[in-house]
Amino acid sequence: MSALRGAWVLAAQCPSRLGTVDVVTRFLKEQSCYITELHSFDDYRGGQFFIRAAFRPEVADFEESTFREQLAARAVEFGMTFELMAPETRLPVVIMVSKADHCLNDLLYRYRTGQLAIDVRAIISNHPDLEPLASWHGLPYHHLPITSETKPQQEAAVKRVVDESGAELVILARYMQVLSAALCHEFAGRAINIHHSLLPGFKGARPYHQAYEKGVKLVGATAHYINDDLDEGPIIAQGVEAVDHAHYPEDLVAKGRDIECLTLARAVRYHQEKRVFLHAGRTVVLAG
Amino acid sequence: MSALRGAWVLAAQCPSRLGTVDVVTRFLKEQSCYITELHSFDDYRGGQFFIRAAFRPEVADFEESTFREQLAARAVEFGMTFELMAPETRLPVVIMVSKADHCLNDLLYRYRTGQLAIDVRAIISNHPDLEPLASWHGLPYHHLPITSETKPQQEAAVKRVVDESGAELVILARYMQVLSAALCHEFAGRAINIHHSLLPGFKGARPYHQAYEKGVKLVGATAHYINDDLDEGPIIAQGVEAVDHAHYPEDLVAKGRDIECLTLARAVRYHQEKRVFLHAGRTVVLAG
Amino acid sequence: MSALRGAWVLAAQCPSRLGTVDVVTRFLKEQSCYITELHSFDDYRGGQFFIRAAFRPEVADFEESTFREQLAARAVEFGMTFELMAPETRLPVVIMVSKADHCLNDLLYRYRTGQLAIDVRAIISNHPDLEPLASWHGLPYHHLPITSETKPQQEAAVKRVVDESGAELVILARYMQVLSAALCHEFAGRAINIHHSLLPGFKGARPYHQAYEKGVKLVGATAHYINDDLDEGPIIAQGVEAVDHAHYPEDLVAKGRDIECLTLARAVRYHQEKRVFLHAGRTVVLAG
Amino acid sequence: MSALRGAWVLAAQCPSRLGTVDVVTRFLKEQSCYITELHSFDDYRGGQFFIRAAFRPEVADFEESTFREQLAARAVEFGMTFELMAPETRLPVVIMVSKADHCLNDLLYRYRTGQLAIDVRAIISNHPDLEPLASWHGLPYHHLPITSETKPQQEAAVKRVVDESGAELVILARYMQVLSAALCHEFAGRAINIHHSLLPGFKGARPYHQAYEKGVKLVGATAHYINDDLDEGPIIAQGVEAVDHAHYPEDLVAKGRDIECLTLARAVRYHQEKRVFLHAGRTVVLAG
Repeated sequence: MSALRGAWVLAAQCPSRLGTVDVVTRFLKEQSCYITELHSFDDYRGGQFFIRAAFRPEVADFEESTFREQLAARAVEFGMTFELMAPETRLPVVIMVSKADHCLNDLLYRYRTGQLAIDVRAIISNHPDLEPLASWHGLPYHHLPITSETKPQQEAAVKRVVDESGAELVILARYMQVLSAALCHEFAGRAINIHHSLLPGFKGARPYHQAYEKGVKLVGATAHYINDDLDEGPIIAQGVEAVDHAHYPEDLVAKGRDIECLTLARAVRYHQEKRVFLHAGRTVVLAG
Repeated sequence: MSALRGAWVLAAQCPSRLGTVDVVTRFLKEQSCYITELHSFDDYRGGQFFIRAAFRPEVADFEESTFREQLAARAVEFGMTFELMAPETRLPVVIMVSKADHCLNDLLYRYRTGQLAIDVRAIISNHPDLEPLASWHGLPYHHLPITSETKPQQEAAVKRVVDESGAELVILARYMQVLSAALCHEFAGRAINIHHSLLPGFKGARPYHQAYEKGVKLVGATAHYINDDLDEGPIIAQGVEAVDHAHYPEDLVAKGRDIECLTLARAVRYHQEKRVFLHAGRTVVLAG
Repeated sequence: MSALRGAWVLAAQCPSRLGTVDVVTRFLKEQSCYITELHSFDDYRGGQFFIRAAFRPEVADFEESTFREQLAARAVEFGMTFELMAPETRLPVVIMVSKADHCLNDLLYRYRTGQLAIDVRAIISNHPDLEPLASWHGLPYHHLPITSETKPQQEAAVKRVVDESGAELVILARYMQVLSAALCHEFAGRAINIHHSLLPGFKGARPYHQAYEKGVKLVGATAHYINDDLDEGPIIAQGVEAVDHAHYPEDLVAKGRDIECLTLARAVRYHQEKRVFLHAGRTVVLAG
Repeated sequence: MSALRGAWVLAAQCPSRLGTVDVVTRFLKEQSCYITELHSFDDYRGGQFFIRAAFRPEVADFEESTFREQLAARAVEFGMTFELMAPETRLPVVIMVSKADHCLNDLLYRYRTGQLAIDVRAIISNHPDLEPLASWHGLPYHHLPITSETKPQQEAAVKRVVDESGAELVILARYMQVLSAALCHEFAGRAINIHHSLLPGFKGARPYHQAYEKGVKLVGATAHYINDDLDEGPIIAQGVEAVDHAHYPEDLVAKGRDIECLTLARAVRYHQEKRVFLHAGRTVVLAG
């Protein structure tokens, strides 16, 4: 929301307990921080508490490091971890693609027009095809081909690009390679994948063809964090649209493209705005 | 659509071949039948042709039996099978339920108000709970309890009620028993089940709990014909709604109720209006 | 959400100012009230602050009157008004109808099954038609016919029934009479109407016919509070569905029924759960 | 649908009368044309008949001119007009824009990837801003600035570009100028505009700001043909999404962008596939 403009964002979680809200809100008050948006959720099944606040300091001498230190001092008693984001921060990301360009095109459009507060540091692909699109946007394009033999080296190169770019999020925008368990693990919680199916619907290859065979009347897409199991990580966002018998597999694929773009962009925005919390294999999305 | 009022409906299918449309439309013209709605679909992958026409005879002496005979004579060359429905026909149905009444309540409301052109001949349940609802609508209620020992006898009784009622469709409106393979087979193509999941998503028990564990952001329901595998028959309609982390399993169940009602009612209407064609384990729904 | 079970709800609003969150959350902490759900919103254009908390007292001797008094003492400094609702409270309502029964049937179903925490005290209609439905649910039915001559007396009778029933909300569930400005004013903020159009789309008579003439591809409904202008009060919820050229006006009406039911039920639930705040002619709905 | 590949499309309309279907389908059969998709609709209120057939000639010597002549000879008796489109035809279009590029970006992406079978002949804008985007796609960009004084000359230039380009459709992709009545008339039925509101909702300037003031819970967009009244032409497609109080006007604008893109692209596709029929100020969209 535009209410975010000029606002700091604080996102925190800890085990459920009396006073979890108060420890945050009282501190913000004492620091003369004006809360513009606040959302908390206490998961009684999981026994975990989540809070997100957007706020504006009403004092001239607000200092991030002091704020962090003092909040940490209070949070420790609650076992609370937190993240803090300064206003107008753009999240540094690396985007990974193969040949399909619909998600990349959409992300770059939102990046270029400022709709997504991301800072695209690099694009990685196992194919050369999308280089012109990257270069029109003035972005470095790393063509890192892959074979079963070269997979370890290629993944090492991927990791190097990500590390050197300073990216805090990796976006798998239809990257058609299965990451090794090691790389999945490395990127766990900081890589978002778009899966072309309503998980846990159709896994494995060609989900739209599976959907066709099944005669489904809805198709969808799932944006999720990757974990050790590429297609099974915690879900962030899902999208869906109606189809009918006249949608042959190739039509489902086409329809899926629009859903994939919108769903992935939504998930990236939630992540960037620190609305997504990971806990016990599920997400809490304080979507506002 | 209301264009159906006063109209006959003809629904036919046959293997793909030149002239499949013409054999139907020319015949209708020759019989002075005015077509108000026409939809055909030729499935090039399955090699099967489907057509549905709503029409009004423009002659005073239209006779159903003659029409049937003469059309059959022409259709035989194409291997075409067809169904014909007179105007204002109400489909005789039996509804099967257990304890949950949301789908039954919705169906009976649409039945009572004429929104669904069905003629409810009987309600069957393995529990006595919903008898008052049936009796308020003046409908016979067959309480047929079931145990693993009495299952064969109970299913025989179910079949008897269905047969004697003259029902052409059995609606499983949250009937919480797994039908035997034999009864599934008996009812194949003429029984619609509402499954509380976006098939092929969550099978087995408590799909909403599974959905919760998975942290899905969408829940849905699937109306489908039963075949030998109760939960895996051809899909007729699907519905979906957005949810979030704050939906505990019981909330998903509640949300699911609305989706189940609407999705089941839609599937029954499609079936009653002869919009659904079964072929090779999939449906073609000429939904208008 | 089911998290509400066993929880008190506190809803408050006041002009925007530093400390608005803290004054509420600190108080709850001091009272040993465990917050299960918290949502606040600060409207920077309107300069107004809104907060809603669901909480459970963790002390044995929690006393509502003391809680109210002490909170009021703190709130006064902020010009804050608040409402407090005890766990498992059912909102006393009166439902007004004419002849169409789809919304009434839906509300009574949700009332009977506990999906809506309302306590239906009476049903008022200007027609006798829906009396059987009311009586099946064991509810008093007031048939109050109306003509242009008897309108003042009829409205006086309506007001009397509402007052004597102790209802805190009046639900206009397709009551096809225009309330007088005086009665609108009397019920302002405590009467919800369902309008069969996507306000501000089609006003006046027969909006579905207007929609047909216009050839719209979407139809919808709007649930809103009434104010002095019956069809123009603050919007609480809206629903929509796709239609096409084959939907004649009567089909749009039929389609509209489902949307009206769902949209009205949603608005009533939001209101009952104290999620709706009125300010400056608009609503803030902390939908959770 | 992909079933279109390799198929001719025939779209026709005429006054309602017995034999309207047969005159088309019998002819196709006689010409050995295999119908892959057929949809007809008879508007009983408007007394007009519409039909669309996708077909493949099964003879080697199919000749378009002969087909046209012979069909015309039969159609004349019914007062039937028709259009015929060869397989893989790309519709020549001109796109008009101002400064906002979201719709243009989306259309060019679909054009470049073949998702939309259009042939973009030129882009016209009253501002220079989007020239780089056009030139990246290798498309001519006509910067035609406009003032109230130069409007007649500018519109003459617009018309000249359209005429000389051979465009059969003009797409107003957020062109923020009101066309003169004369140019509207000139382009009637062959220009599609995207309106950033759910017509007939908010007309005039800044509809999203109007929507904010009204506190709507849904925002949408409308793609329509222009006629003499720019914002009031026959509707082709509408899209919608849910919003809440936290959407300030600028957020509604942002949300609207996605809806506008998808809705405009859908309308252009329907038009290109000859699915849209204009009659008596409304559209019939045989959407398949």
